[in-house]
Amino acid sequence: MELSTHLSGFTRRDWQAIEEGGPVRLAMVGLGWWTREMAIPAVEDSTFCETTVLVSGDAEKAGAVARATDAVEHGITYDEFHDGVAADAYDAVYVVTPNALHLPFVETAADLSKDVLCEKPMEVSVERAGALVDRCADAGVTLMIAYRMHAEPAVRRARELLDAGLLGEPVLVNSNMSQRLLRDVNPDPDQWRLDPDLSGGATVMDIGLYPLNTTRFVLGADPVAVQAVVRQSHEAFADVGDEHVAFTLEFPGDVLATCTASQNAHQSSFLRVTGTEGELSVAPAFSDRQPRGFELSYGGVTVDYDFERVSQMREEFDYFAHCLLTGAEPYADGEHGLVDMRVMERIYEAADRDDALEV
Amino acid sequence: MELSTHLSGFTRRDWQAIEEGGPVRLAMVGLGWWTREMAIPAVEDSTFCETTVLVSGDAEKAGAVARATDAVEHGITYDEFHDGVAADAYDAVYVVTPNALHLPFVETAADLSKDVLCEKPMEVSVERAGALVDRCADAGVTLMIAYRMHAEPAVRRARELLDAGLLGEPVLVNSNMSQRLLRDVNPDPDQWRLDPDLSGGATVMDIGLYPLNTTRFVLGADPVAVQAVVRQSHEAFADVGDEHVAFTLEFPGDVLATCTASQNAHQSSFLRVTGTEGELSVAPAFSDRQPRGFELSYGGVTVDYDFERVSQMREEFDYFAHCLLTGAEPYADGEHGLVDMRVMERIYEAADRDDALEV
Repeated sequence: MELSTHLSGFTRRDWQAIEEGGPVRLAMVGLGWWTREMAIPAVEDSTFCETTVLVSGDAEKAGAVARATDAVEHGITYDEFHDGVAADAYDAVYVVTPNALHLPFVETAADLSKDVLCEKPMEVSVERAGALVDRCADAGVTLMIAYRMHAEPAVRRARELLDAGLLGEPVLVNSNMSQRLLRDVNPDPDQWRLDPDLSGGATVMDIGLYPLNTTRFVLGADPVAVQAVVRQSHEAFADVGDEHVAFTLEFPGDVLATCTASQNAHQSSFLRVTGTEGELSVAPAFSDRQPRGFELSYGGVTVDYDFERVSQMREEFDYFAHCLLTGAEPYADGEHGLVDMRVMERIYEAADRDDALEV
Repeated sequence: MELSTHLSGFTRRDWQAIEEGGPVRLAMVGLGWWTREMAIPAVEDSTFCETTVLVSGDAEKAGAVARATDAVEHGITYDEFHDGVAADAYDAVYVVTPNALHLPFVETAADLSKDVLCEKPMEVSVERAGALVDRCADAGVTLMIAYRMHAEPAVRRARELLDAGLLGEPVLVNSNMSQRLLRDVNPDPDQWRLDPDLSGGATVMDIGLYPLNTTRFVLGADPVAVQAVVRQSHEAFADVGDEHVAFTLEFPGDVLATCTASQNAHQSSFLRVTGTEGELSVAPAFSDRQPRGFELSYGGVTVDYDFERVSQMREEFDYFAHCLLTGAEPYADGEHGLVDMRVMERIYEAADRDDALEV
């Protein structure tokens, strides 16, 4: 198959089977900056969904954000959500709270027979993530994990090119995601990401997940073994322990991926896959604050591909709603998310051994 | 200090103190394609050296290449070299044989009181590399290891920028070097690089050295600990064992570097250093067949820097000769090379443990 077949219509929705439907009515649980600045506008711009309920720990905030947002009918508290308030006003729930609160909100959603889009990482431990999956299965509700990179055209085209064999067999992957959490994202040293009980870990769980999961996605394979080093020196990371991480993933067929992540380094990200016949690079790759780049070397030619930037979050919400409307199982289902949880648990375990050979 | 101070005169010889001198007369030991196509033309184009003697295992080849090369006075055999033939016709020796032959040729050079430029890796083992260093020290001859990346302007400017603190403190390094040895370099499955007795290893020793050594050079630091995975599936690599490798280096100050190398993947290389305040990327980085790229992100701006390509080999020969003429100790002395040998030994040891945690 020709390269041009894959690269033309770069931002196409290869998953879309229907033109109209819904809207799927969403309750958004957790009203941090991500929800207010990214998720709500994305849904407003979507084809298949609308936001009708907003849920916050703070009643005043819930009311204020609800009043300021078109289509939203209810601003309710966490307790009211658990009590089933306004349950008739939404069809599905987007859970975007601190990681350790995902399980109770998903449990309530399942009890209310609401489908769930749950932010990544799923929870703070494999055990709690497993409980989350089981509860959704028992209730017969759809569970999708919100990996926004799966909605990114550059990542979808990378996956297609690899799957079509245009780069030969994959051999090596290199990837990084870094940012300065306290300078670029949130200056508060008491934020939940730095509290291990609420986050489960700072760097592996919050951003190491991007190199890990996106590598899985583009290779269409899961890691079989892990090596890792975790380091911490800045005092704000003393409780969580992971400020910087380097990990190596081994995939079936001797494919090796080396990944790094830091919550205290210049904001930067890339994903590079080297095959026997070519190479592709997505850089910048993972930050929602930067555009994506897409470079391909193949058959002696290097192409730096420019394409229209799309809203990953809009694409993600529409994909989720489209699954619900068509009865399709989401790609990133609970089992998909559980693999990441298991790998990340192994990354922390491997790092805890601290067994690198001294030189 | 301003960025422009470092980037102006990008290809300048920051090490050069004299305008004229020599020429230092070189004997080149080993007449493979690298010597014929890269080294001899580089010296012809140099300021401070000339090639006067060529040494080969094959008397006919030695004579033919010698006759075809300006300035060369003698084409002699390996045995003749060891016997001191034409020793008055050269001042220094460039050793570019299979790795396991470096020691005997350096021993002879030292016995003849000739200074030595020895190709990397120094030898097939730490023990033999150490013997090589000791022999040069005992004889009072200068030993330099031929790391051509130290002569590359993009790498020298990267080192300067990091050293000046313009990227803040370094945090993470990602790097790769890959090529298809049997397709891009030499199709012969019986070549010396695939014979562990002659090479000491195929991928770590021959190209993994580039991410390792160039990271050391730009950081100005040496690794303190190592993790590694080595994999082999193609039968041509069965004897050496290392077809693909991934390794993580820990440097002082919690700096983590993840590196990959493969002798059976698309030709590609890059080096990316992420600091607290910025990032720089050299890509392509290490292949002599590709130009270098230099990209810098710093203070909110990303600069893709174009510069005139220089001959690394010419720069390297002139730097070596310049050291001899001025009495300066080469940066890449025997101790510098020994660090790589020790790290590579640890990479193989770490990989032999095969202790990655299963997922």
